[in-house]
Order: sequence, then structure tokens, then C-alpha cells
Amino acid sequence: MSRLVDECIGTFLRDRTLVGATASSRRTSAVSGRRRAMRARLGHGLAGLLVAFLLCGLAQAQGAGVLPSWNDGPVKARIIAFVQAVTDPGSSDFVAPADRVAVFDNDGTLWSEQPMYFQLAFAVDRAKAMVASKPELAQNPVFKAAASGDMRALAASGNKGLLELLALTHAGSTSDAFTQTVREWVRAARHPTLKRPYTQLTYAPMRELLDYLRASGFSTWIVSGGGVEFLRVVSDELYGVPPEQVIGSSIKTRYEVREGKPVIVRLPEIDFIDDKAGKPVGIQKFIGKRPIAAFGNSDGDFEMLEWTTSAPGARLGVLVHHDDAAREFAYDRESHIGRLVRGLDEAPARGWTIVSVKNDWRRVHE
Amino acid sequence: MSRLVDECIGTFLRDRTLVGATASSRRTSAVSGRRRAMRARLGHGLAGLLVAFLLCGLAQAQGAGVLPSWNDGPVKARIIAFVQAVTDPGSSDFVAPADRVAVFDNDGTLWSEQPMYFQLAFAVDRAKAMVASKPELAQNPVFKAAASGDMRALAASGNKGLLELLALTHAGSTSDAFTQTVREWVRAARHPTLKRPYTQLTYAPMRELLDYLRASGFSTWIVSGGGVEFLRVVSDELYGVPPEQVIGSSIKTRYEVREGKPVIVRLPEIDFIDDKAGKPVGIQKFIGKRPIAAFGNSDGDFEMLEWTTSAPGARLGVLVHHDDAAREFAYDRESHIGRLVRGLDEAPARGWTIVSVKNDWRRVHE
Repeated sequence: MSRLVDECIGTFLRDRTLVGATASSRRTSAVSGRRRAMRARLGHGLAGLLVAFLLCGLAQAQGAGVLPSWNDGPVKARIIAFVQAVTDPGSSDFVAPADRVAVFDNDGTLWSEQPMYFQLAFAVDRAKAMVASKPELAQNPVFKAAASGDMRALAASGNKGLLELLALTHAGSTSDAFTQTVREWVRAARHPTLKRPYTQLTYAPMRELLDYLRASGFSTWIVSGGGVEFLRVVSDELYGVPPEQVIGSSIKTRYEVREGKPVIVRLPEIDFIDDKAGKPVGIQKFIGKRPIAAFGNSDGDFEMLEWTTSAPGARLGVLVHHDDAAREFAYDRESHIGRLVRGLDEAPARGWTIVSVKNDWRRVHE
Repeated sequence: MSRLVDECIGTFLRDRTLVGATASSRRTSAVSGRRRAMRARLGHGLAGLLVAFLLCGLAQAQGAGVLPSWNDGPVKARIIAFVQAVTDPGSSDFVAPADRVAVFDNDGTLWSEQPMYFQLAFAVDRAKAMVASKPELAQNPVFKAAASGDMRALAASGNKGLLELLALTHAGSTSDAFTQTVREWVRAARHPTLKRPYTQLTYAPMRELLDYLRASGFSTWIVSGGGVEFLRVVSDELYGVPPEQVIGSSIKTRYEVREGKPVIVRLPEIDFIDDKAGKPVGIQKFIGKRPIAAFGNSDGDFEMLEWTTSAPGARLGVLVHHDDAAREFAYDRESHIGRLVRGLDEAPARGWTIVSVKNDWRRVHE
């Protein structure tokens, strides 16, 4: 019963908060907090059940409030029509809940990625801290560039240099210690141009979409080119996606017992790159099912959308197109990260939906 | 609301079925079928809710029926006490549902593994079929031994030979085609000495335990040394564990587009061995959380139990000891597979529970 109460309170709060919401500091965690408080007041008894029942009715009456941060138009209509088709038992497109798998890229799809991937900002800060306590590390040119904030030299080191920086700054500790390091960084760090914590740079319309899909019986997975153990630290708080539903790139690890205490040691060696053709491989490896909906924003997501949408039955492929320099960033074909060329060219023929941040989103970060 | 109805029907059916159950063909899938039927009769309205409410009360009144296939004694009492402690909000050992992670080995823990791993029987049958259609494959000595049923020669090829056989018989097709091959084999194959389908060789007390843990808010994961894409084909039907909660050994795969159709191709190369110290690594890689309960039966599960039980808070480590030659098989320290030496020696000092199949299980397979 407690699940039912939770669900109805959640729906009620979401709709109440989102309908007519203005730019405010509302965040998923805020809803969680209010849900807890409301739940505590309701208790677990029959009274709680009845109140939840009333809330459910109220929430349904507000059905028009689905995806309120999305402007009305063909994109929003397409998403809602897909969800209605696969959840309607009378529809020929009906999909059982166990197979309602939706996959989301993270950087540029669920939160911003400019002027550099947030995880790269973390790696640069890590390199600074590591060189401060161990100056000889600066003999490595990549480390030196990162530690001195010389982003031009870092960029010149290419993909190989960046991967080396990620492996070195993300290894050398245990999984538990690394989680702690990420948690502290996320709490303290600020975006260089938007001057806000990174945790406030998720896309409100996409958080709503995650909630909407889960309320419609979907499981929601993040399939990121970024490091899995970095993202898992914040995925639940930011998106309501638990660690076990985050797939990402990884370095190798080793189990060992140190002074009688077992640890998982992070090694400076790439294990798996969850990008481009690696995304379908990661999906099959971790989920073992083919998704029916995929959301991305760059050509790194092309194969994920292709794999998702080329099987029979109702399928949804969506690309977020960053075309809003006023409220966020505008970039596509020429960008150094998040480049989107093939996706834009082939979307119409493949039946993929392009989201215009400028036109389709009523708000962006708030 | 539909989730509540489902949950209560599930609890009701489970208890009705398990209390006083005799050796029958009861299986999780049978419960699922009856749940669907009952749900269809109840409908989704207020009437359904009220009936579900009554069923819930009835189910709770039957609480004494927990784990009916386990004989009363210290082992059963220990398992139930652990579950009660971590689910009681008033207990200092309380664990939030999201962190109630339980991991299970498969071979020898959830189903039999003698006289050889069931997946090896599949590999031998595959080798026979492959050599029949492509005789030149028999030039490989491992293939030749398998195809001619010369188990002595196969055993003599050692671990290296066996791994080679597994890689070769499990590769060369796409993920979809491999799933289909496994599905057909599982339907047709019979155990060589017990003369029954392999699907009837799961342990009834362990299936009950999986149900009991899930009903108590746990997520249940299989962490097998066997191949993940083999096990995923049957995990839901046999154990109620969906593909995304199966972790296992794997070969490498590659995404490619063949004549316009995307496929995931299985390559004859080992990617990850999910055994011994690989099990905690696999758990961290896939779940990203440390389990609070682990169930195994051999020294291949030692590190998984060690990792699970050496963190603070209530922890449960359980080893199934096969000591029942009359109803199943008896083996431990000297066995060629499922060897259990260190586990038996160190269990008392580590607080791990040893299950005697002979004394603790009222029934085995039925």
C-alpha cells in the first residue's frame, strides 16, 4: 500500500508543482522532500489510502498537465502519442511493462555539456589537487596542462590525451573513496560561465519526461559516454535513476583484500568505451533487452537510436538539438563536443524526432 | 493502484500455493499466470481495490507459511531473523528498500550442477550440431572431443580447453540468434542421469527464498560464473529474475549493420570472467552497490560472500552444502566442480550460514 500512497502523492505533487510553474528552484529532490513530508502526515493507514485515492483522482483530472515544460506542438504530441500507444492494452502497439525500456544519453541530453563535459571539469580539478600533493605528477604533459588550467594544450593532446587524463585522475583509489571524492566535488563546484552548481544544470523538460515515462511503467536507463562511477553518484538525486540503471564508460578494477579489508581498486586502464557503436553493446551487456525509446543529442548517440528504432513495433527516437544561445548554448555541426551531423541529416528518413530547445522547451534549467 | 492489487494478489497466491504444497509442478510462471487471471476477474476499480485489501489481510494472517520447503531449525531461523531485522523500520539494522540487494550464484545454488554444468552440456550439444554441418571444425581437438562425446579428452584439455569450447560454441552468431538457439535447446534437452528437463532442476527452497526476499522489498540478482546471455534466456521463467538482473561471464560483442539491419555479433573472445574475485568486480560494475545478502555453494563464491559480509550493518552470507546423495548429489572438498573447501573451513569464524541440503530442505527439486 505504501507504494500506492507514494505514487499518488508523487503524481499529485508533480502536477501541482509543474502546472504553471515559473522559473524557480524546484528540483526532483525538492519533490522528494515534500513527498516525504506529506507521507509522514498521511501515515500508512486506511486514512492515508483514502486520501491518496482522492489525490489520484485529482492528479488524473489534471492530465492536461503532462509535460508542462514542453510547448504544445508536434514534438510533444509525438512523445505523448507514443507513450499512449505502447501503454494502451487495446492498442496493437501495446508493450508489456517489463519491455518498456527507455534509454537516455546524459551529457547534452539530460544536462548541459558546454563549454566542456562536466566530468572533464572534475578531472581538471582532480589533476590540480593531485599535482598539489604530488608535484612529480606534472612531469606528465597531460597532467601538467590540466593542473595549470591550460585547456588549449589539453585539447591539443587529442582524444588519447583526454582518455589518459580521465584514466589517471579516476584511478588509484578504491571505489568507495572515489565515490566520496565525486560527492564532495559535485557539492562545491560551479559551472565556469553559468556560475551555478552543476546539479542545477539538468534540463527540466527531460526530468519531467523521465518522470512521465516511469509513471507510464517504463524503466529509465542512462547510457552515457561518461564514466559510470562518476555519474552513479548523482543519478538518483538528479534524475531518479538508481545506480544499477546507469551504463557508462569504465576503467578496469580489481578486487583485493588490504589488511583484512576487501576493497575494489580502480586501475588506470580503459575497460569499456560506452559511446557510438559501444552504446548498443553496453545496452545489450547490461540490460539484455532492446529498448523501445532512445533519447540523445549528438552523433555519439546515433547507433543507440538506430539499434532502438530499427526493430518491429512502436519505437521512439529523439534527438535534442541545441539551438538556443539565449537560454543555454547553440551548437551542432561544427561543435568540438556534442557534434550533431549525421543525426540531423538522417532523422527525417529514419522517423526520428528533433527537439528544438528554443521552440519546444518552455523552460530549460530551472 | 494496479500495483497494489498486483502485490496483494501475488502475496495471496504465493502463500496459498506454498503452504502445504506437495511435490508438484508449481513454478513462478504458474503463479504469474494465475495472477493475471485473477487480476482480469478483479478489474481495476474500487471493488478490485477492496478485494485486494482483504487478500492482503488474509496473506498476512498466513505469515507462518514463510519458507515452507525449509525445515525448521537454526538455518531457517537465521534467514528469517535477518530479513525481519533489515525490514523493520524500528530496528537499528533497518535498510532502505533501494539498498536491499541480494546476490545469488546460480550453478549449485539455484539449480543443480552435477555431473557437469548445464551450460557445458549445451556447449557439447552445440559442438555436435556445428561439426555435423561443418565437419572441418573437428580439426580443433577440443571441438572433436566435445562432438564425439569424449568427456575424458575434454576434461583433459583443462580450463583453457573448456573456455575455448565455450567461446567457440557461443560465438559466431548474433545475440538474437543465440537467444533462439538456447531457448530451443532448453526446451528439448534432458539431464543425463536425472532424465528430466533442466528447467525442472531448480531448487524449490531457493525459489521460495527469492520470492520471500522480493516480497520483503529486496532486489534479487544472479551473479553466475556461467555465461550471461545463456542464463538470461531462462532466468525470468525459472526464478522471476529479469535479464537486467543477471550478471555473468561474457564474450566480446560488436555492433554492426548488415545489409541495412543492425545486429550485435558475438565474438570468440572472452570479455569478463565472473567467478571468484571477478564476482565482486561484476557486482560493482553492474549494480554499483554493495549487497547485504549473498548466497553461494562453492569456493568460486568466496569473494562474493566476503565482499558482502565484511561491511558494517546486518549482513547475511549463506553457503549451500550438497550432502544429499539420495535426493540430489553429495560433493564438497574433492569435487571436480563446485569444490567447497575454504568456505567450509572459514564459515564459522566469518559468521556465514551453512545450509545442509539433507537436513534443512524439506524438498529439493519438486
